[in-house]
Amino acid sequence: MNNKIIRLQTDLYRIPLPVPLSDSMHGTMTHFELVAARVFDDAGAEGMGYTYTVGRNGAAIHSQIQRDLAPLLIGQAADRIESLWHRMWWHLHYGGRGGTASFAISAVDIALWDMKARIRGEPLWRLLGGNDPLVPCYAGGIDLQFPLDQLLKQTEDNLGRGFRAIKMKVGRPKLGEDLARVRAMREMLGADFPLMVDANMRWSVDEAVRAARGLQESNVYWLEEPTVPDDVAGHARIVREGGLPVAAGENLHTLGEFTAYIRSQAVTFPEPDVTNCGGVTTFMKVAHLAEAFNLPVTSHGAHDIMVHCLAAVPNRSYLEAHGFGLDKYLANSLQIRDGYALAPDRPGHGLSLDWKGLEALRA
Amino acid sequence: MNNKIIRLQTDLYRIPLPVPLSDSMHGTMTHFELVAARVFDDAGAEGMGYTYTVGRNGAAIHSQIQRDLAPLLIGQAADRIESLWHRMWWHLHYGGRGGTASFAISAVDIALWDMKARIRGEPLWRLLGGNDPLVPCYAGGIDLQFPLDQLLKQTEDNLGRGFRAIKMKVGRPKLGEDLARVRAMREMLGADFPLMVDANMRWSVDEAVRAARGLQESNVYWLEEPTVPDDVAGHARIVREGGLPVAAGENLHTLGEFTAYIRSQAVTFPEPDVTNCGGVTTFMKVAHLAEAFNLPVTSHGAHDIMVHCLAAVPNRSYLEAHGFGLDKYLANSLQIRDGYALAPDRPGHGLSLDWKGLEALRA
Repeated sequence: MNNKIIRLQTDLYRIPLPVPLSDSMHGTMTHFELVAARVFDDAGAEGMGYTYTVGRNGAAIHSQIQRDLAPLLIGQAADRIESLWHRMWWHLHYGGRGGTASFAISAVDIALWDMKARIRGEPLWRLLGGNDPLVPCYAGGIDLQFPLDQLLKQTEDNLGRGFRAIKMKVGRPKLGEDLARVRAMREMLGADFPLMVDANMRWSVDEAVRAARGLQESNVYWLEEPTVPDDVAGHARIVREGGLPVAAGENLHTLGEFTAYIRSQAVTFPEPDVTNCGGVTTFMKVAHLAEAFNLPVTSHGAHDIMVHCLAAVPNRSYLEAHGFGLDKYLANSLQIRDGYALAPDRPGHGLSLDWKGLEALRA
Repeated sequence: MNNKIIRLQTDLYRIPLPVPLSDSMHGTMTHFELVAARVFDDAGAEGMGYTYTVGRNGAAIHSQIQRDLAPLLIGQAADRIESLWHRMWWHLHYGGRGGTASFAISAVDIALWDMKARIRGEPLWRLLGGNDPLVPCYAGGIDLQFPLDQLLKQTEDNLGRGFRAIKMKVGRPKLGEDLARVRAMREMLGADFPLMVDANMRWSVDEAVRAARGLQESNVYWLEEPTVPDDVAGHARIVREGGLPVAAGENLHTLGEFTAYIRSQAVTFPEPDVTNCGGVTTFMKVAHLAEAFNLPVTSHGAHDIMVHCLAAVPNRSYLEAHGFGLDKYLANSLQIRDGYALAPDRPGHGLSLDWKGLEALRA
């Protein structure tokens, strides 16, 4: 295990979405950006990681990996990921502590973990903890602007695809519209079916408290991102006064931010995205911190990698199944059966990108 | 005032430092990166802003301004800076909320404010509030590795240059070394001379409390960045138990972060850097928030622009004089007399960069 990093390759692509997506704060999204990172060692091993954006910042992330991180990592022991992580963190720190730096570090960190597991011939979830490869899974809809019939049709499709839990968007101009849509979904799904809702930071704290109270009648499993992530105290009030569990984390990009939320009882379902929280290294710390506080951990995006992280830990809640149009360029993408995803037994995360197919999408 | 933005130009330079600088966490720095932003309107007006880094992340910031922000701003009303600021914030949000996005937004925001003031023929400090153009000023030394005689020689030079307040670095391997160096400075400067110290995040919370208690005998004016910026509760403990005022802010990149510090009594001297906190727009909000909490506000870096921000507000404390080698490329750079800087009376911030001289440093 004395292998040294000899090369770090990064590539930027613009991935068209099969269907334009919408939520309450990002408007309509037609493309995602994919930033891939590949790390190579002096014994011929390789690891792959990636991060993605909703259409901006991708070139900045790519530049940080190529110009700032690659020269830092060449020649270093590939195996000592904690040490490499802290080198990257402090190297980018003055312009970092979150933002694009966290995305860049995440992509590289995932590649390092993939390589480490591949060298050992182990699947990543087993190397990280090996709790249980069967992970309950929900379909994450980005459907705020869908008319009700399209929403119900999407739900029918999701049930047909094997999902046994579903998340929908809320945050329409009138709360009454949200409540009616959630009621319609509840009627279709039956009383105990896990149904999550996601407001994408749309509301003030008072609006969120009012919405949470209104959503109680529909037995919502969690309310996600009720208000802006900058307001930890506001989230704590929503948890306390809204009467619903609160999920948050896709916009938290450091361990320190998750710590602030968890210690303040501002979140019930911490939801780190391995592609922007700081990678596998930070995800595992957040998961363990949540366990220490008697909380579950869930995921955001990047389901093919997140399934390993959740399969590793005992306090895993649902995995979000959400490919952002990437599935087309992935061999061996995630399979859902009877509401569960199965963490693969291939070495590393077991994913491979279709580099040739992606070539046409290079940005 | 119906002028529209027609162009946003950004340029990236690598500026060699006249003398290599060192602090406890960034190691030795030989270059800074300068990212300049120029905004042009349809009536022929122009504004200039910039941000800088300690040598990394510059290309990422440049890319965010060029690829992500420029297309967003073209055609917009140049005058409605609040509205433009929020557009920029939400456009970059998924990879933003601090990090390089805050640097990119800061550079553009400064350019917008410069243009707004120039169009009105007013100096920026007067447009922003016009409290008092005379701003007390300290010399910020980056001198952790200087032998004691070099430190004292630098101090002599600073006194000769008209400074009546000085900051030095601490965070050497042994606390005893720090205390001895501070004592030597105190002896040279006399009992009441304002002497600040800056640990650049070096210590644990307990080490910082111990250091603060040790530094009390030297009547230190403030202790800056005693520990990592992620630990708000730790800062609050250092304020409470260390017995010294605490300054922090160069690594806080959002209004939300300053709010968390200020409401938690985790900082005595909030210290936003206008080039990385979100620009003039965010600086003014932090300054007013500090005033509401009965706190002073100080500055970090970019003294030629910061002097306007501090001259605008009644709760201004000292301005840090610190040019990072940029003075050579600035016309009309800051003059210090008897411990005060004078905010200039030229329209806008009144700075101009030597674009021809900078050309050789393009990165």
